Amino acid sequence: EGRPLPATPVAARLAFLAEADRLKSVLRATPVLKGARRENSAEHSWHIALHALVLHDLAAPGVDRDRIIAMLLLHDLVEIDAGDTPIHAGVDAAAQAAREAAAAERLFGLLPAKQGAALHALWQEFEAAETADAVFAKSIDRVQPLFLNLASGGGSWRDYEVTLAQLEHRVGSKIARGSPALWAFVRARVAPWFAA
Amino acid sequence: EGRPLPATPVAARLAFLAEADRLKSVLRATPVLKGARRENSAEHSWHIALHALVLHDLAAPGVDRDRIIAMLLLHDLVEIDAGDTPIHAGVDAAAQAAREAAAAERLFGLLPAKQGAALHALWQEFEAAETADAVFAKSIDRVQPLFLNLASGGGSWRDYEVTLAQLEHRVGSKIARGSPALWAFVRARVAPWFAA
Ligand SMILES: [Ca+2]
Repeated sequence: EGRPLPATPVAARLAFLAEADRLKSVLRATPVLKGARRENSAEHSWHIALHALVLHDLAAPGVDRDRIIAMLLLHDLVEIDAGDTPIHAGVDAAAQAAREAAAAERLFGLLPAKQGAALHALWQEFEAAETADAVFAKSIDRVQPLFLNLASGGGSWRDYEVTLAQLEHRVGSKIARGSPALWAFVRARVAPWFAA
Repeated sequence: EGRPLPATPVAARLAFLAEADRLKSVLRATPVLKGARRENSAEHSWHIALHALVLHDLAAPGVDRDRIIAMLLLHDLVEIDAGDTPIHAGVDAAAQAAREAAAAERLFGLLPAKQGAALHALWQEFEAAETADAVFAKSIDRVQPLFLNLASGGGSWRDYEVTLAQLEHRVGSKIARGSPALWAFVRARVAPWFAA
């Protein structure tokens, strides 16, 4: 019937969770609900975690579904301080990475030290995109906006005048790294929009 | 390198994920961002999955963090068809349960049969609130709105004129079932609002 409170202070964890509420106000370039409004990063994070739950068997063998879901739940928290950077907007990647690193320091620093370090490391693993888990998590993060753009008649592709070649380069290559089969499937669905 | 596409049709899974986008328009009674607007069920689902990631060690021993997170990612999908039912609004619970059961049939039925059955069973386990995993998942689902209400000066407690005794009965008892320690901690934080 429930353990006694562990040594790690609960108050610090609740402060972190309260701060996370702010991710609900970070707006992304991608429309939701067939274009009715822009998506926020909190609901995006939920949607891609659900994608991972449903699509994880398209990853390379050995990928850990639950580590990927944990990564995806955390991956955008830094946007509370650093904002969202639309992939097609051409922002300065190094400056953005520095802002995000500082944000991660602050946000994971709200947690008790040991827990904060573990979640900070998981976020860094996602960002580095070197392990198989991180590579597939990045695929999932990239594939969800494509369907939202399709459902809304172009979405951020239209706003940023994206070509299929640019999409292949900026997005497709990253999806294919995690799952060539998934990118082949998705490419066949998005290519007609660019041809039209 | 990624596996070849498995026998389960990817298209059916993507149809399910596209339908899930609609959870972003289901509004709850609870305010977010210190009262700036009402929360939607998609961002709520993300926030409670993050709560489970951070608070899981307050559960009874043997509870499986990752099963709980999967439950929480799915638990509100039925609201796409059945709507949200504010806990303090006094709706007909049997009629609502029937609407939600029909919604679960339809939504999990969008998936390939085997995957749909597994996720449907996980949702049913959450609803039944009998296993240790489901009981703790319900605790987490109930505890997050309390903090949002506190942060917004009362939130849905004010709208529905809730008393501390009602909160104990409708919410506290369910949180305490999953973690008496968590409810003791949270109760000490919310009680002053009702005394004021
Ligand atoms: Ca992002």
